[in-house]
Amino acid sequence: MNVTIHGRTRHYRTVTFDETGNCVVLIEQRLLPHEFKTVATRNYRETARAIRDMVVRGAPAIAATAAYGLAQGVREHRGRDLAKFERHAETVYQTLKAARPTAVDPVNAMNQVRSVMCHGASVEERHHLALAAAEEFANRSVEECRAIGRHGARLIKNGMGVLTHCNAGWLACVDIGTVTAPLYAAQAQGKRFHVFCDETRPRCQGATLTAWELAQQGVSHQVIADNAAGHLMQRGEIDMVIVGSDRTLGRTGEVANKIGTYTKAVLAKRHGIPFYVAIPLSTIDWKLKSGLDIPIEERDESEVLGAWGVLETQKAEDRRQKGQSAPRAYVRIANPTSGACNPGFDVTPAELITGVITPRGIFKSTELRQRRRELGCRD
Amino acid sequence: MNVTIHGRTRHYRTVTFDETGNCVVLIEQRLLPHEFKTVATRNYRETARAIRDMVVRGAPAIAATAAYGLAQGVREHRGRDLAKFERHAETVYQTLKAARPTAVDPVNAMNQVRSVMCHGASVEERHHLALAAAEEFANRSVEECRAIGRHGARLIKNGMGVLTHCNAGWLACVDIGTVTAPLYAAQAQGKRFHVFCDETRPRCQGATLTAWELAQQGVSHQVIADNAAGHLMQRGEIDMVIVGSDRTLGRTGEVANKIGTYTKAVLAKRHGIPFYVAIPLSTIDWKLKSGLDIPIEERDESEVLGAWGVLETQKAEDRRQKGQSAPRAYVRIANPTSGACNPGFDVTPAELITGVITPRGIFKSTELRQRRRELGCRD
Repeated sequence: MNVTIHGRTRHYRTVTFDETGNCVVLIEQRLLPHEFKTVATRNYRETARAIRDMVVRGAPAIAATAAYGLAQGVREHRGRDLAKFERHAETVYQTLKAARPTAVDPVNAMNQVRSVMCHGASVEERHHLALAAAEEFANRSVEECRAIGRHGARLIKNGMGVLTHCNAGWLACVDIGTVTAPLYAAQAQGKRFHVFCDETRPRCQGATLTAWELAQQGVSHQVIADNAAGHLMQRGEIDMVIVGSDRTLGRTGEVANKIGTYTKAVLAKRHGIPFYVAIPLSTIDWKLKSGLDIPIEERDESEVLGAWGVLETQKAEDRRQKGQSAPRAYVRIANPTSGACNPGFDVTPAELITGVITPRGIFKSTELRQRRRELGCRD
Repeated sequence: MNVTIHGRTRHYRTVTFDETGNCVVLIEQRLLPHEFKTVATRNYRETARAIRDMVVRGAPAIAATAAYGLAQGVREHRGRDLAKFERHAETVYQTLKAARPTAVDPVNAMNQVRSVMCHGASVEERHHLALAAAEEFANRSVEECRAIGRHGARLIKNGMGVLTHCNAGWLACVDIGTVTAPLYAAQAQGKRFHVFCDETRPRCQGATLTAWELAQQGVSHQVIADNAAGHLMQRGEIDMVIVGSDRTLGRTGEVANKIGTYTKAVLAKRHGIPFYVAIPLSTIDWKLKSGLDIPIEERDESEVLGAWGVLETQKAEDRRQKGQSAPRAYVRIANPTSGACNPGFDVTPAELITGVITPRGIFKSTELRQRRRELGCRD
């Protein structure tokens, strides 16, 4: 999407490849929303580190990064011996896989690159095919988001209040985003609407990333405390909810997503407000039989006990004025002798979901199973 | 309640009167949970300032502070002329009233002091009666909380998970608290249970004050993000919810309380979990006919866009080790070019409330109207 920094507007993807320098170029997401900059990883090990250290986050974005990282890594190999090349390629693959061991999307992405690359008759040809396959993966990812936007935009009417939770925007993808795709598409059609961004404690991806994205695109929005959504629904301010999905069970239509998603679905149901989930095909899990089987990650309690932000002191302001980095700081909010319980995700049952917005159309989440062929299930 | 600081345990009320120094002694609540100290206001103007600047907060606590402040103020008057004394008393009353203009509890408390004081035949006697009336007001407030605890404790069973929202503990009252009263009473009966404290964004009174209180009393607890309650209910971890009330409509049974309360009530209903509201009698409003008539304060957006806490740096740790104040800081969390919408309260309808725990017993909230005489309604 377009980013405007110091009055200059330029189009960015979250991840691209610089063929000349054999670099993967990433938006340094840990600095957002307080600072925007890109970083170029000089070799596949740096790319793996960027994935591990969350320079880049969001399943589609790290998948594309891994795909490019694999192409980058194999292109670092200079010899002509195909057997040696394949041993090196395996090392690159395993290094990138280990950078985020629980994620499935990077593995799927790299498998796609590998399956194309292996048809190359020479090392040089494999170099070429690997990069072409990575580019194709990234482009397909963008096309998926564009299709989600095309289908979802018709749900958004003039004057609507739309609630979002967490960030499933272009920063989490290669471009456009999933949840944000219908918003950007509706905006391009000239529709006017207002977005309430749940701040999404404890990590506040709504207040930081979604709010930054919407501000950059000029979409009318306000950040709200997660506690405020129910009240705003009572007062008729919210007409629709759109959230993302970390894992969608193809068999049952259940959706695992950032903690708090379930609560918004329960509230929406009570108020008769449509609740939509935007999903790229890669998040559909065709194997699990029940949402109860989804492991819910218990994250570090420090996330709940405090918060990260930038200091609002005169000294900090002076630094900003000089174009220096705003100093980030963690503050402990909670009582120092108390602990926290911090589940990272929750599971929303199909009965609370009005529809899933996929690249192939909008369906009831219980319909996914019967549409599994068109949704890419290969079993 | 008892407070243990540096290994020494002492009993405190949130507000007491030091007759020798003619001082109101308050717990400096703005420093909690990171530091515990008391402050003594030397005259009624300082007391008014302490109310205004939120050294003390919570309706019952500021009511008692205003009652003591009125006694303190009139005792500053040295002459014997009753007419002059009354003019001075009126100034004190208006000054204290203006310190928190929208609160009704301080006015009611001061009216009680005034109605007793006026029976004094001399200035000296009025000095004496004013203080006695203020003490009686504070003691009655404590008795109310004790009665809430007596009635509410029977709801708490061994092994329960209890969810709380915001702080309606002893820090908001003179002692014991409202929501916390059943917890402390059940603990005294030897019951074992676990409390999940909603952090209660944006001001985080759950993470700061409720967690501090429970830690001080040795009650098993964990802070959770407001987003986590739904998930914990799904997983069967929560057996009961108790919240406080800023205003309870006697006619309809609706409850206005900190933003997010309504959401917890909706979740509890879905899961068949009992949802109780602990209310001191002074929060019952017998006049309003509908929750829609309750004005919902829109608070400053900076509360949502950032957070207050203490810095966790080595320098800060060194200061703490030396017994110096932990440096408090505000961090901006949200995107710097985004605004926020920040309603302070919401309204929970009677149908979602299992019962109200009052000093006179536990009732359905729709029953309040028919019990208005025993609940102190004088209309």
